Amino acid sequence: MKNKKCSHAVRRACLPVRQAIVLLSGGLDSAVTLYYAKKRGFSCSCLIFDYGQRHRKEIESAKKISRLFDCKAQVINIDLPHKGSALLDKKVKIPEHARTYGRVSSIPVTYVPARNIIFLSFALSFAETLSAEAIFIGAHSHDYSGYPDCRPEFYREFSRTIAQGTKAGVEGKAVKIYTPLIDKTKAEIIKLGISLGVPFQFTWSCYQGKKRPCGKCDSCYFRARGFGEAGIDDPLLVGSR
Amino acid sequence: MKNKKCSHAVRRACLPVRQAIVLLSGGLDSAVTLYYAKKRGFSCSCLIFDYGQRHRKEIESAKKISRLFDCKAQVINIDLPHKGSALLDKKVKIPEHARTYGRVSSIPVTYVPARNIIFLSFALSFAETLSAEAIFIGAHSHDYSGYPDCRPEFYREFSRTIAQGTKAGVEGKAVKIYTPLIDKTKAEIIKLGISLGVPFQFTWSCYQGKKRPCGKCDSCYFRARGFGEAGIDDPLLVGSR
Repeated sequence: MKNKKCSHAVRRACLPVRQAIVLLSGGLDSAVTLYYAKKRGFSCSCLIFDYGQRHRKEIESAKKISRLFDCKAQVINIDLPHKGSALLDKKVKIPEHARTYGRVSSIPVTYVPARNIIFLSFALSFAETLSAEAIFIGAHSHDYSGYPDCRPEFYREFSRTIAQGTKAGVEGKAVKIYTPLIDKTKAEIIKLGISLGVPFQFTWSCYQGKKRPCGKCDSCYFRARGFGEAGIDDPLLVGSR
Repeated sequence: MKNKKCSHAVRRACLPVRQAIVLLSGGLDSAVTLYYAKKRGFSCSCLIFDYGQRHRKEIESAKKISRLFDCKAQVINIDLPHKGSALLDKKVKIPEHARTYGRVSSIPVTYVPARNIIFLSFALSFAETLSAEAIFIGAHSHDYSGYPDCRPEFYREFSRTIAQGTKAGVEGKAVKIYTPLIDKTKAEIIKLGISLGVPFQFTWSCYQGKKRPCGKCDSCYFRARGFGEAGIDDPLLVGSR
């Protein structure tokens, strides 16, 4: 592993810097994940994906967070060969939150086919090139909107794919996927973020790209419930009042 | 599975058309795979990837083959966040064939980190959107240049990732990966292609993008050896003499 060495005068006292790729969406989960990865001692490079989502607010949020965090960030354009999701196709209405979540049988229209597999593939390619040892992604299954690619089962399988399908993998140095939020509730994620100093006022969760969050979509619902359960005012809403 | 129905007058006699996504590179393996998929009764849509490779000849070859085959083809731009391969970085010299192939320990500089994982992820996203049941890829491990993502182990693991990470997968209708060439030698692939009518004169294998194949790189070496062992003149070379 080619890790950067520190410039400390007494080199023996210093460990090599561990490199990680962090997937940054502009939402609160990935922001917490970025701050967590740093806390764990990783030097982070962020990937932000422009995949034709119906609004650019989350991309702008992601860029702002990476600037505040003072880490490298690259926007990757994803040229999807379809518009098979309400998040991509403006003709499809974003549904209001009115479902019992957590059941795989109720995968919503906001599901983007294979989205996290695509994102992780790019991150993997980048990680292997940089000899980074880790990829961090803020997926979690507690209130995961029914997305199959937010479940631990998926990440376990993808890790096995990495071990078999990459040079680093077959050489016994497979890039590791970290999902530090996977079993946490939204309230727990928010509390963790507060303890890490995450600037939640600059994160964006709403599926709509309007001036203010719609307050009705799944993503707004889970965010509001999370802040409510954590007993904290959402600084995004406080700031826009 | 939403498959197109035929327009035959006696509908009972007709099976629904099975949809497949075929990864088309412009090389001979993927061309044989396309013709094989059609022979197996699939209606094929091709994906051609423009991922910053050092020349455009293979993309032009892929387009030509898809036109000759009269199937839909889409060129997908892949915005890789690095140039970590001799196939992407013109500053890195393409090595001449001078290795014992088949050993994973000798993965060459032409390896593109996670390339097939990225390609398959896009194909998967497209397949799921179209309700296509299959993805065909012309990977093979017999003379596979040491690429880890051309081995059966990788495709087995990726199939498990599909089962866990997609809507179709968790609903028990996972998109299936077909690797019909995986255990074939280059000579066997060429003979299969001849039997299927593949227009080999329009395929391009050389890693260089010059007017004629360099005859020295790994890819030229395996192609020449395959045609030699099959006892067939390479129509690409015959045509350019």
